[in-house]
Amino acid sequence: MTASDGRSRVVVVGGGFGGLQVVKTLARGNAEITLVDRHNYHLFQPLSYQVATGSLSPGEIAVPLRRIFRRHRNVRVVVGEVTGVDLERRELSVESVIAGTAARLLPYDILVVAGGSSYAYFGHDQWRSLALEVKSLDSALQVRGRILQAFEAAELEDDPDIRSSWLTFVVVGAGPTGVEMAGQIAELARDTLPREFRHVDPRTGRVLLIEMADRVLTSFPPSLSHHAARSLERLGVELLLCHTLVDVRTDSVELKDGHGDGTRIWARTVIWAAGVTASPLAGALAEASGVEVDQSGRVTVEPNLTLPGHTEVLALGDMVRVRDANTGEPRIFPGVAPVAMQQGRYAGDLIAERLQGRSGQSLGRSASSFRYQDKGTLATIGRARAVANIHGLRLWGFPAWIIWLLVHLCYLIGFENRVVVMLRWSYSFFTRGRGTRLITEAAGVFPWEASSRQ
Amino acid sequence: MTASDGRSRVVVVGGGFGGLQVVKTLARGNAEITLVDRHNYHLFQPLSYQVATGSLSPGEIAVPLRRIFRRHRNVRVVVGEVTGVDLERRELSVESVIAGTAARLLPYDILVVAGGSSYAYFGHDQWRSLALEVKSLDSALQVRGRILQAFEAAELEDDPDIRSSWLTFVVVGAGPTGVEMAGQIAELARDTLPREFRHVDPRTGRVLLIEMADRVLTSFPPSLSHHAARSLERLGVELLLCHTLVDVRTDSVELKDGHGDGTRIWARTVIWAAGVTASPLAGALAEASGVEVDQSGRVTVEPNLTLPGHTEVLALGDMVRVRDANTGEPRIFPGVAPVAMQQGRYAGDLIAERLQGRSGQSLGRSASSFRYQDKGTLATIGRARAVANIHGLRLWGFPAWIIWLLVHLCYLIGFENRVVVMLRWSYSFFTRGRGTRLITEAAGVFPWEASSRQ
Repeated sequence: MTASDGRSRVVVVGGGFGGLQVVKTLARGNAEITLVDRHNYHLFQPLSYQVATGSLSPGEIAVPLRRIFRRHRNVRVVVGEVTGVDLERRELSVESVIAGTAARLLPYDILVVAGGSSYAYFGHDQWRSLALEVKSLDSALQVRGRILQAFEAAELEDDPDIRSSWLTFVVVGAGPTGVEMAGQIAELARDTLPREFRHVDPRTGRVLLIEMADRVLTSFPPSLSHHAARSLERLGVELLLCHTLVDVRTDSVELKDGHGDGTRIWARTVIWAAGVTASPLAGALAEASGVEVDQSGRVTVEPNLTLPGHTEVLALGDMVRVRDANTGEPRIFPGVAPVAMQQGRYAGDLIAERLQGRSGQSLGRSASSFRYQDKGTLATIGRARAVANIHGLRLWGFPAWIIWLLVHLCYLIGFENRVVVMLRWSYSFFTRGRGTRLITEAAGVFPWEASSRQ
Repeated sequence: MTASDGRSRVVVVGGGFGGLQVVKTLARGNAEITLVDRHNYHLFQPLSYQVATGSLSPGEIAVPLRRIFRRHRNVRVVVGEVTGVDLERRELSVESVIAGTAARLLPYDILVVAGGSSYAYFGHDQWRSLALEVKSLDSALQVRGRILQAFEAAELEDDPDIRSSWLTFVVVGAGPTGVEMAGQIAELARDTLPREFRHVDPRTGRVLLIEMADRVLTSFPPSLSHHAARSLERLGVELLLCHTLVDVRTDSVELKDGHGDGTRIWARTVIWAAGVTASPLAGALAEASGVEVDQSGRVTVEPNLTLPGHTEVLALGDMVRVRDANTGEPRIFPGVAPVAMQQGRYAGDLIAERLQGRSGQSLGRSASSFRYQDKGTLATIGRARAVANIHGLRLWGFPAWIIWLLVHLCYLIGFENRVVVMLRWSYSFFTRGRGTRLITEAAGVFPWEASSRQ
């Protein structure tokens, strides 16, 4: 059950908010901890949309995992992709993402899986290659390149219809990410770019925000949804509520409204921010332990975050549903950083207790269940525009924006990053400039180009 | 000879130091200026090696071209690749690098070509896919990813020979870029990374600097070469002077010393900083005007930077040799930013004069020749280590480093970038940290992987 030197081997999968918190909680202890992630950095995902719109640089919202744990000799980092879990042999298969190195097996005594989620395309997986995402750092850089390329293409285009399709941006899903992206693209077009083009006026660009529900930010109280919608409209964002997407193509999307009437919108840039599906690791855990996953691929864990029948395996974050200790019903927590961080801390404490022998082998059985302490919800729309719901206190506009700003600066990792980000934000606030509007190779090729090149 | 509205059409190819200066000089005038570059940004190339080693972010050393000229309505930017010059019809062929947009012809009345150079592989073009460069922003990001991946691979590797080949870095060419890269990799291995790895000690990494000549920084006086060499050795860089490269493979390089004896060095990361070849545009201009290029592909221009027989075409920067007004011999100026900037300003003034009718159609014939005013040469080796040669005043160590630092901060474009870079440098100076050590997809795949994937 333990490593050769008698120390327990804890393997944590995922260097997001949840996994990071587990390792931080355990790092001062005696266990031999291995953190596995496919990237060599922790990404502060709530700000990746600012990379996607040229406000911040990747290095300002990402920190190397090795740097975070450099002082903890008992923590090692493995950059690799987990491809399988063997619950019987207590081993993970990790495929290397570093060229020229072999796949390996990682044995564990305790396993924590915090693999996160990715966007779901409602069964239309072919849309994935056409739409863009701001989930990872690489995808955010791709979005940045593609948005900027769309304006460049419009500037070069003589056909007015094609030009207007380059200047039309469709954002799918009016959750926090969709609202942020729509607001940022509108600000980019209206405030940052106008004087920079000679043939097109970026202010003629359209930003459409498509939402199935009848309001934006459904996780907020209706009054704040209303404020957010008004802020978006003031920025020129066109809200298409009660609309569903029925087709995505390289040059257009097709929508249906509540009455089933269809419209085709000519747009060459589609950003996806709707619906998530849990990491495939959730499915692997479910299958290996004989439990089912829900329709979003989440595995259901016990109230103490352990996998049913496997007290040595914990799972957390937006890849799990948590069984309620009282009702027994699975509960879905919002897929936000505070949930993952609290679950990470809870899991870390639970493991620490077990390793100190206080709860023996019955990890979690005796422990109290995880409880989420909701400290509030924030979403920003743009410059000095945000909404905040803090224990029933509803704020919007400038005060909400200041809170959003301070909270994000505070949780960002690294003193240097905080100072740089604060500086960039101050600069943007006063000049409406965006310092990192670069089209690099990360923009990739357009999907139709890729197919024609083959 | 002029645009439909009677204004002269000036087309400038290349948004580097030279081209940018031409446009800046002419921007306040009346001409209709088009700046063509394959990137949407101006890169402050002297600092791209700091992106390659994780000290700075791309957005901190690159500025969108459109932003620089946003207030000059007579300047337009075309993001595209120049593929041909028709001197008779006075037209440029520009291929779009923006997907979905067509190639186009750009007519000009006056053409300035500042296409720069790329690295030459001494006739071994197959080495290009194996070695790395820090010339462009994209290649610098690739170098960053590959250096960091090498350390990750070493950490995962059990075979001590392969591990040591991952920890061996070969830099080819001991000019300013090669010296900077070797110094930075050595500092990364010795100062930044050591506490972050558990299986390997990055300090055991080797950095080899290969140079054909018998000293580093041959453009400096020998005494400063000596100081630079001592600084490099103190950082642990192994200097292999009087050595030539005879083979580059995925896992090794082969060298020959002055006596013709060969050695194979097992190294998986090779950074190329030796020998340049002029942009293909130099060849295109030479061919179209019936002049010859030198062995590095440079076209020879008149003392006033015009193309022989074509007073309406100017070329400058490190893609040209300039015929000396007195001796008639072609002269090669150093391939550094100050030369390009002074030539750009000279070319801009010459064109402005012509457009104001002062020198009529005889552009340049009557004008005085270009003269380079050498303000000094600087090269940095690492933290508080640099050499400077300023009008015979020779400085090294900390004083030279401070001058290097101030000069680079001063020439960097954008107030925001200056503040952020100063902040990052101060932070690095005191903590020896490097804030942007991210392996992103820009790292690309390794050459042998690419071939096995096909």
